[in-house]
Amino acid sequence: MAHKIGNQTFIFDKQINIRDGVCIVGPKEKEGPLGSYFDQKEDEDFGEDTWEKAEARYISATYSKLLAKSDLNENLIDCIFSGDLLNQCVASGNGLKKTGRPFFGLYGACSTMAESLTLASFLIDGGGINNAVCMTSSNFAAAEKQFRYPMELGNQRAPDSQWTVTGSGAVMLSSGVPEGEKCPVIKSVTPGIMADYEISDANNMGAAMAPAAAATIMTHLSDLNISPEFYDMIITGDLGSTGRKLCMDIFKRHNLNIKLNDCGEMIFDAERQGTCSGGSGCGCSAVVLTGYLLKKLKEAEINKILFISTGALMSPVSTKQGDSIIGIAHAVSIQNI
Amino acid sequence: MAHKIGNQTFIFDKQINIRDGVCIVGPKEKEGPLGSYFDQKEDEDFGEDTWEKAEARYISATYSKLLAKSDLNENLIDCIFSGDLLNQCVASGNGLKKTGRPFFGLYGACSTMAESLTLASFLIDGGGINNAVCMTSSNFAAAEKQFRYPMELGNQRAPDSQWTVTGSGAVMLSSGVPEGEKCPVIKSVTPGIMADYEISDANNMGAAMAPAAAATIMTHLSDLNISPEFYDMIITGDLGSTGRKLCMDIFKRHNLNIKLNDCGEMIFDAERQGTCSGGSGCGCSAVVLTGYLLKKLKEAEINKILFISTGALMSPVSTKQGDSIIGIAHAVSIQNI
Repeated sequence: MAHKIGNQTFIFDKQINIRDGVCIVGPKEKEGPLGSYFDQKEDEDFGEDTWEKAEARYISATYSKLLAKSDLNENLIDCIFSGDLLNQCVASGNGLKKTGRPFFGLYGACSTMAESLTLASFLIDGGGINNAVCMTSSNFAAAEKQFRYPMELGNQRAPDSQWTVTGSGAVMLSSGVPEGEKCPVIKSVTPGIMADYEISDANNMGAAMAPAAAATIMTHLSDLNISPEFYDMIITGDLGSTGRKLCMDIFKRHNLNIKLNDCGEMIFDAERQGTCSGGSGCGCSAVVLTGYLLKKLKEAEINKILFISTGALMSPVSTKQGDSIIGIAHAVSIQNI
Repeated sequence: MAHKIGNQTFIFDKQINIRDGVCIVGPKEKEGPLGSYFDQKEDEDFGEDTWEKAEARYISATYSKLLAKSDLNENLIDCIFSGDLLNQCVASGNGLKKTGRPFFGLYGACSTMAESLTLASFLIDGGGINNAVCMTSSNFAAAEKQFRYPMELGNQRAPDSQWTVTGSGAVMLSSGVPEGEKCPVIKSVTPGIMADYEISDANNMGAAMAPAAAATIMTHLSDLNISPEFYDMIITGDLGSTGRKLCMDIFKRHNLNIKLNDCGEMIFDAERQGTCSGGSGCGCSAVVLTGYLLKKLKEAEINKILFISTGALMSPVSTKQGDSIIGIAHAVSIQNI
């Protein structure tokens, strides 16, 4: 039974176990500062002849890897939550069409990983669902093709722009764990509210997402009446360095001193790798969570984190028509018990 | 507490009330056989200068209409589930960005209405969530522009093609109802599994969706060990006449005699209105549910229905790259108590 506390935070009664997490990343991600933590590296195209098929392949391979690691009969998976950045989420559809498991498609842009964890936690806590797969993906070239310019143009990148992460991350969320094992658990979630600060520059998504991230984090802390120090790490999905700085500015205006990390900033060495403001894409927070954060939690180097995936809700058409980019951020509190 | 029964059906313990439902449709839908049931008619463009903005306007107006009808303080809405057919679901994003309520974006193509009802039912049953808005939309011109040919070409329509419904439908799902009132409730759900029968003709989505619809319906009946006659009406989202016939063929091969209705077939008079196989689009099952079915349930003309929204998971790019169209169908059992 979930309990609502404050404005928009929900605490779970049951133990929502992050039984396993796996990820597959592309070459650039493997060469980044977190490279050694990622489970598997594949070529950007994963041997496929289109970027869209490559992304679907990342999804299917990550799903298979998770199944193998979890040592769980596929029939015991009650449902899968997945979504991605491609039009009509075709990477998730094509990547998972052969699973034979009930499927819930999501669209939350880069907030998808936290959205999937949030919904799956509710379903497990409410009963009936014992095992749910939560996953997402992104692919640099597929995203460039769809949202920005043809890569063949060789356009110069804007300083605040972000580099879409090639990769897929998947989590097995379970009501139980194998005997004797201990896993990090999801204690509470704060689903996000859309924030529109009338940013319409598709090369500055950090600015569009920062207000939503700040709002979700501040609401989470005030709903639970805890200080930022309660967490060993508060980490946003992919604000990038531009967005993270803006988010910190918002905290300062509220007289809050919050140390903020960002998956997008951590996954690349911006100067060495030429990634401007940092990584982005649904895959960014998904691979940093499954590759890096869950390992640090399992080793008890950190014990309590607030994981906030941030999404920029937009399409190339909406941008061209002058609509602003809407930010959203969902927060998931992950703790060792 | 939800209970899983059989392969993929979940029965809810709590009373999941369909407190209210409203819809807004376009002129062609208003002129169709169900026209008199729809709550409001607006122009195809709803006074906006682009089709995408028109669809967002349908969403925002339908949401406002639902709020007014429910006579519920907006702050009591715990979350909103919505998605649509547009790239990156911009109709839902833009239409709901000012609500200030936690938002879960979905992508289930035309299965979105049942997907939203399914997830919201789980969340209400599990506790913590008392009121959730479930909604979706589609717009004929926006969908043609995005998925098919420029309308200015005046292309001839293929006989199996479907006509995207212009409209938006929204449901207020609640754990409680105003004193003395009675509402239809959601008793159980059967989330769908993706089915790929290698249909790649984007003008024949009925064929792509029929196997998924048949599978979900047969699983629902066998999971609950009930006969088709248990329901006063079994109604699919938008298989259209082509898809409904194929679905009936599948039932026959399984020696099942199931009377099947279809929202897509019912919403238009195909011959008079030139809609070929019938209506489609996320809005189709959403407006037939909220405009027609819920009214028939409230008047107790029917008391038990199985509502199955069906989705064709595809994008223009995936179709051009030779990927098949994946079908999915989620079933929701709605009953008077």
